[in-house]
Amino acid sequence: MQPVYLDNNATTRLAPDALQAMLPFLTQDFGNPSSMHAMGRAPARALIGARRAVQALIGAADDAEIVFTSGGTEANLTAIRSALAADPSRREIVTSAVEHPAVLALCDHLERAEGVTVHRIPVDTEGRLELDAFRAALSDRVALVTLMWANNETGTVFPVEGLAELAHGVGALFHTDAVQAAGKLPIAVKGTDIDMLSVSAHKLHGPKGVGALYLRKGVPFQPLLRGGKQERGRRAGTENIAGIVGFGRAAELAPAVDLAHIARLRDRLEAGIIAAVPKVRVLGDLRDRLANTSCLAFDFAEGEAILMRLDRAGIAVSTGAACSSGAIEPSHVMRAMKVPFTAAHGAIRFSLSRDTTVPEIDRVIEALPPVIAQLRALSPFGAEEVR
Amino acid sequence: MQPVYLDNNATTRLAPDALQAMLPFLTQDFGNPSSMHAMGRAPARALIGARRAVQALIGAADDAEIVFTSGGTEANLTAIRSALAADPSRREIVTSAVEHPAVLALCDHLERAEGVTVHRIPVDTEGRLELDAFRAALSDRVALVTLMWANNETGTVFPVEGLAELAHGVGALFHTDAVQAAGKLPIAVKGTDIDMLSVSAHKLHGPKGVGALYLRKGVPFQPLLRGGKQERGRRAGTENIAGIVGFGRAAELAPAVDLAHIARLRDRLEAGIIAAVPKVRVLGDLRDRLANTSCLAFDFAEGEAILMRLDRAGIAVSTGAACSSGAIEPSHVMRAMKVPFTAAHGAIRFSLSRDTTVPEIDRVIEALPPVIAQLRALSPFGAEEVR
Repeated sequence: MQPVYLDNNATTRLAPDALQAMLPFLTQDFGNPSSMHAMGRAPARALIGARRAVQALIGAADDAEIVFTSGGTEANLTAIRSALAADPSRREIVTSAVEHPAVLALCDHLERAEGVTVHRIPVDTEGRLELDAFRAALSDRVALVTLMWANNETGTVFPVEGLAELAHGVGALFHTDAVQAAGKLPIAVKGTDIDMLSVSAHKLHGPKGVGALYLRKGVPFQPLLRGGKQERGRRAGTENIAGIVGFGRAAELAPAVDLAHIARLRDRLEAGIIAAVPKVRVLGDLRDRLANTSCLAFDFAEGEAILMRLDRAGIAVSTGAACSSGAIEPSHVMRAMKVPFTAAHGAIRFSLSRDTTVPEIDRVIEALPPVIAQLRALSPFGAEEVR
Repeated sequence: MQPVYLDNNATTRLAPDALQAMLPFLTQDFGNPSSMHAMGRAPARALIGARRAVQALIGAADDAEIVFTSGGTEANLTAIRSALAADPSRREIVTSAVEHPAVLALCDHLERAEGVTVHRIPVDTEGRLELDAFRAALSDRVALVTLMWANNETGTVFPVEGLAELAHGVGALFHTDAVQAAGKLPIAVKGTDIDMLSVSAHKLHGPKGVGALYLRKGVPFQPLLRGGKQERGRRAGTENIAGIVGFGRAAELAPAVDLAHIARLRDRLEAGIIAAVPKVRVLGDLRDRLANTSCLAFDFAEGEAILMRLDRAGIAVSTGAACSSGAIEPSHVMRAMKVPFTAAHGAIRFSLSRDTTVPEIDRVIEALPPVIAQLRALSPFGAEEVR
């Protein structure tokens, strides 16, 4: 039996169309786009097409605003370092307590090693940004506000357009990590106050190892990777042409995805589980959440044990960010949302995709309740509590 | 007719075997290696295999010394930044005047923006490092010596093992950009004084967008990309599994390459051209040069014009580093070697590979002389001078 893959926030299946688009650049069209001879031409043309596709994906005004990177982590690092270099008199960063580790780990480092002050704005129990704390942190000392568009663990969406406006009110640059948002909700950066935005191909059925940084025209910029003149001098290094082409094709496919259908499947999953399992809570902001994401916390059942048993039943899920898998502590997102300890330990992320089917959802609805019941029976507290 | 591709120092054809190894990870095995469920297992295993293959390619003691990156540029940047962070009391870098732009542009930036002192050691007219100047630049203020193993334009090989020993003599770290050397000469870092080494997959018939940094056990290290725990916390970001697997397979294929055969083809090319064309010089250190590289300077003929005419004849070459193509000035390597102006403008790099054949070489020997003769006839000085 085919496994049921509900871990699409960790990574997605490469779209067969994207692979087809990549293959020429992994075979005969292997040239370097910087080369002046014939072998450079097809790759150079392909680069233009892919850049326009990513421009369209995020609704940017100009394809020159797209800088290809090796992924979301590099895009985030480039944006944050560049913003700090833009105005050395501003030495503060405003971010949130629930950002991706790529942002939080860098902020921790900047604070510790480079004397940058970092404001980590808290969230409420539904994962929504505390707006009063956000406003209070803004000042003319802030170089950059960096806030994710959508949370990887709960799917909670931040109102980034409005937050960007507030950031500009104090002269700060605004960056958003849209790695989970791109392809899962409509994005149109043109006309907004968003200065920089990170995306990653492999979260939207493109290949791993490629992403992009949106860089609004006129925003001051310092490259991270210097050397060759690739990407208009903004990102040196021979372009990962096949990867970029696959990203472009995946970006072209994204608008056709029926997000409402995915949301209905997700709601079916939640309703089915809630009907069959007592003491389960849905985490995140239910009014503004990615269509594909459901983060469920099961009291008195250990998340990793749930994951392992579902895995044996051919169902792939995550206990939180794949990046931090292996950790026993509840994730930083769970802690920031003040999810009770007994529930945070039993949090499971189900993340769907365009490939998810009704029968797959129903397999999960069938397989999960006995798993939870067994684990609770083993728990020293669980059996009593949920009876 | 198939084009004759003699621009392998810019990029190489992806080995069909490497593509075959990549395909499962671009189709069914698309999981994230950090995932704890079944879909993470094949990618995680593949990562181990590829790491061992790259370890073997460069003769490292331990596979934990290999950190996968997005390419040579990122590996170089990571090494240089890390070395500077290791001991803040050392604020000098020793490098050469003929390094790849990825190293030189970063050094320029560090000097200009961060107060680092950079010693750019000159080379002689054959491209060999000036050893007296090198020794004179070494002191206990030097954080890092970074010198390329082999030059991308001329193929000249630096004696990096000995240079690394001298660097250690003053307590400096030693990094080498081995992007052009790997796969083209035997490398065995174990037991040497080399602390860090950069390689790139696409220069040795692997895919674009992936490389590695060798990091000798015990060498102090600061990651460039922070966040997820990938690469033992040394390089965050979801791994480019397909690219890494392709790199691993390409690394496995490299030792079987008959370098002596490639050198014979290269020598046949040079002999054929020299016999037919007056006023041509071979640039670089003829006693220690990559087997695949020939940099020929034609007096009174413009390199870009040669390139274009060869391109029309189905022959792909370069006027220097592909990265700096489009520039009209002689490359920094030509200038550092004090190649006379009239010759430097007519420098053409022929870079062969395992795929190069005798008939291809003979096509070039046939096509090139009339091209040079025509261009010299057009030159205001050339026709007189070479008559």
